[in-house]
Amino acid sequence: MNWRDNVRRVEPYVPGEQPNKPNMVKLNTNECPYPPAPGVERIAREMDCNQMRLYPDPECNVLVEALADFYKLSPEQIFVGVGSDDVLSMCFLTFFNNDKPILFPDVTYAFYDVWANLYRIPFEVCPLDENFHINPEDYKKPNGGIIFPNPNAPTGLLEPLHVVEDIVKSNPDSVVIVDEAYIDFGGKSCLELIDKYDNLLIVQTFSKSRSMAGCRIGFAMGNRELIKYLEDAKFSFNSYTMNQPSLLMGAESVKDRPYFEKTVAKVVNTRERVKKQLTELGFTFPEAMGNFIFASHKSVPAKEIFLALKEQDIYVRFWDKPRISNHLRISIGTDEEMDRLIEALTKIVER
Amino acid sequence: MNWRDNVRRVEPYVPGEQPNKPNMVKLNTNECPYPPAPGVERIAREMDCNQMRLYPDPECNVLVEALADFYKLSPEQIFVGVGSDDVLSMCFLTFFNNDKPILFPDVTYAFYDVWANLYRIPFEVCPLDENFHINPEDYKKPNGGIIFPNPNAPTGLLEPLHVVEDIVKSNPDSVVIVDEAYIDFGGKSCLELIDKYDNLLIVQTFSKSRSMAGCRIGFAMGNRELIKYLEDAKFSFNSYTMNQPSLLMGAESVKDRPYFEKTVAKVVNTRERVKKQLTELGFTFPEAMGNFIFASHKSVPAKEIFLALKEQDIYVRFWDKPRISNHLRISIGTDEEMDRLIEALTKIVER
Repeated sequence: MNWRDNVRRVEPYVPGEQPNKPNMVKLNTNECPYPPAPGVERIAREMDCNQMRLYPDPECNVLVEALADFYKLSPEQIFVGVGSDDVLSMCFLTFFNNDKPILFPDVTYAFYDVWANLYRIPFEVCPLDENFHINPEDYKKPNGGIIFPNPNAPTGLLEPLHVVEDIVKSNPDSVVIVDEAYIDFGGKSCLELIDKYDNLLIVQTFSKSRSMAGCRIGFAMGNRELIKYLEDAKFSFNSYTMNQPSLLMGAESVKDRPYFEKTVAKVVNTRERVKKQLTELGFTFPEAMGNFIFASHKSVPAKEIFLALKEQDIYVRFWDKPRISNHLRISIGTDEEMDRLIEALTKIVER
Repeated sequence: MNWRDNVRRVEPYVPGEQPNKPNMVKLNTNECPYPPAPGVERIAREMDCNQMRLYPDPECNVLVEALADFYKLSPEQIFVGVGSDDVLSMCFLTFFNNDKPILFPDVTYAFYDVWANLYRIPFEVCPLDENFHINPEDYKKPNGGIIFPNPNAPTGLLEPLHVVEDIVKSNPDSVVIVDEAYIDFGGKSCLELIDKYDNLLIVQTFSKSRSMAGCRIGFAMGNRELIKYLEDAKFSFNSYTMNQPSLLMGAESVKDRPYFEKTVAKVVNTRERVKKQLTELGFTFPEAMGNFIFASHKSVPAKEIFLALKEQDIYVRFWDKPRISNHLRISIGTDEEMDRLIEALTKIVER
């Protein structure tokens, strides 16, 4: 007997690749290539740092109200947290308390099974079809809850609204969470369905379309009752998670709709152009609707391309995992960054 | 059957009193009355907000290194989190995995039983003695882990180093966590013991002595092995919790040792003066070693004083709970704020 016997056993941590080289092209973590709204900088410059001595507003009103205004919701329909990971984890804890397994796709965001294990929630994965699409029929069996991203990650594929609605409608006894981290890049959010279905919860993030990964802000939208349950769970064990700089900077960024729309449009334009170029180079990919492309080459193995790019300080994401080991996930950078990528890829696939 | 049946059941949330009136005296949440180190404001003014588009450093190096430098430790001996609540919660999850109950005092920080329940950890409370002191003999029975604050909250009583060492030494098979949120206000940290005992973990916070409650920063110090287990657990389910402004502002605040020492000295001086005045007014209290005084009056009930102060916009903390319902917890504010408190109390107890 030893205190080490009581230590939680987990998979050893392998730090993600966070290169930091002068001329690198970093396309491996789906960050936005453009800075946050200019108001964010103004907030930093004008911040009353004396106020930092006080606990932040636990109800996060300034941020919640800005989001309510942006999405034309009531503040009682919004819950905010420290990045969408924190929000999603809180959703698992709050809504998935049943002996039946929760359901999610086999190829999907890597943390779903982690949180399920953390909270001892049984789960079952539903394989995507051969084109990486969700089959809604897979989600019509007894379950303790459902979660999937839309667009999905790392595929980038968007499911149309009627598929999402079919799943939500078929599961009135389960909370269905739609993880819309990448929805702003051309997808249609299922936000319009939250008044119709009281079991639908949507989770979004400031880390992609709002260029604020460094601030750690995520949020959930749903009917007042769902949001109230989330808040009750959160406040029962940690009242103060969102810090003052995040609340102020996040709120300011939401207020600038024109900047947000312009940034998203730039990323989408670049993506569409790069899709054409990748196709010309012999790549195929599911229709990319996020700020990344999940590409596979007809003859050169993904791992080979990944390593060749890395040698030139161009970083993309590669997983040595079943079903996706011949794909690269390429984040959409600036036009200049994508030019360098295409130039490098041209040489790699043609040699 | 309904999705509501799967919702986590928790105690309904009652928002804490966070008054915000122009001339109020807020002495109810143990915040520091002085602003953070001046360098914090400089960091805000100079912050490169373009960098906000990137994920923050998951290893929090800038902050960890500043702390290592301040406490003369190696960076591998330090773990940081979103306030000490986040750090403590992570410690429960990481180290308290045993069928035997963990032990903590009956009058103590309110979240210990909450986290134990959250992670389904059995626990047993050890009553403080009639003078609110910890009896180390209570902690010499089989257990799955031990945690106590020193100084304790809300009593403010400090246990001497030999009492802490006695408990740590008697429990080589358990991790012993000493929650030193208030240690800087005159207590002696047990930091010097971490090389001697591999089962000792110390948790501290930026919310009190470092005037940064609004930034949400806490940290743990212990031997490399303990810290590694904490990091493994944390990284296994959420890599990015500390945001960029917190990392930068927190690091800068730690670098300014003279400001920190001056601020703490001011709070301590005010506390010692107020202790004398409270005694003259007929209050008694355990020897206060935090930035608060846990006071009880010889004739006027605590609740009556609490309400009378509130009428004058002076906020202190009162709990209608067994053993402590005749006490008020009074945070140490500025000298001017404490003058207003003493003036008000004089009228209340003499009428």
